[in-house]
Amino acid sequence: PMVVDGGGAVVAARPPRRVAAVVVRAEAGQAGINPDIRKTEAKVVDSVVVTELSKPLTAYCRCWRSGTFPLCDGTHAKHNKATGDNVGPLLLKKQ
Amino acid sequence: PMVVDGGGAVVAARPPRRVAAVVVRAEAGQAGINPDIRKTEAKVVDSVVVTELSKPLTAYCRCWRSGTFPLCDGTHAKHNKATGDNVGPLLLKKQ
Ligand code: FES
Ligand code: FES
Repeated sequence: PMVVDGGGAVVAARPPRRVAAVVVRAEAGQAGINPDIRKTEAKVVDSVVVTELSKPLTAYCRCWRSGTFPLCDGTHAKHNKATGDNVGPLLLKKQ
Repeated sequence: PMVVDGGGAVVAARPPRRVAAVVVRAEAGQAGINPDIRKTEAKVVDSVVVTELSKPLTAYCRCWRSGTFPLCDGTHAKHNKATGDNVGPLLLKKQ
């Protein structure tokens, strides 16, 4: 339907169409990075007394997916493969 | 349209409808967790020779957002506030 106004101009009477929008918020690096570990804690902090390390080399998790967190159990490899990420552990060496 | 087969059963002849699907892949914890650090490396691994630690307490980053990675510079707090996450550093203590 069209409406001719007093000045003779043709004016569209249809209201503007609403356009549905899908917003994907969680791009890489914007989402939370710890899905499951100790979620009742406000901030997950762990301490290592380095003089008490028993092995020459101990790997600590930085991917938040280890089944033995705070230690690394190798699960970072699965995460990297699934997402294209490149995270790995912190290695503590006694010498 | 319907088709009656030889045994008298009624069989729907219409092909199954295709349903458009929107898949949102990046839920919290499914996306990559390292947005920027050393992305040319396949896996970012760091080593600390613990006998060489100079301070009684050193914080190592596990949020992948520190400006002094692999050390923690406190940026985890900003990440946690922005996303509702609860990540924090690994503290290395000399005694
Ligand atoms: S399992 Fe998390 S860094 Fe290895
Ligand atoms: S800045 Fe990353 S854990 Fe503190």
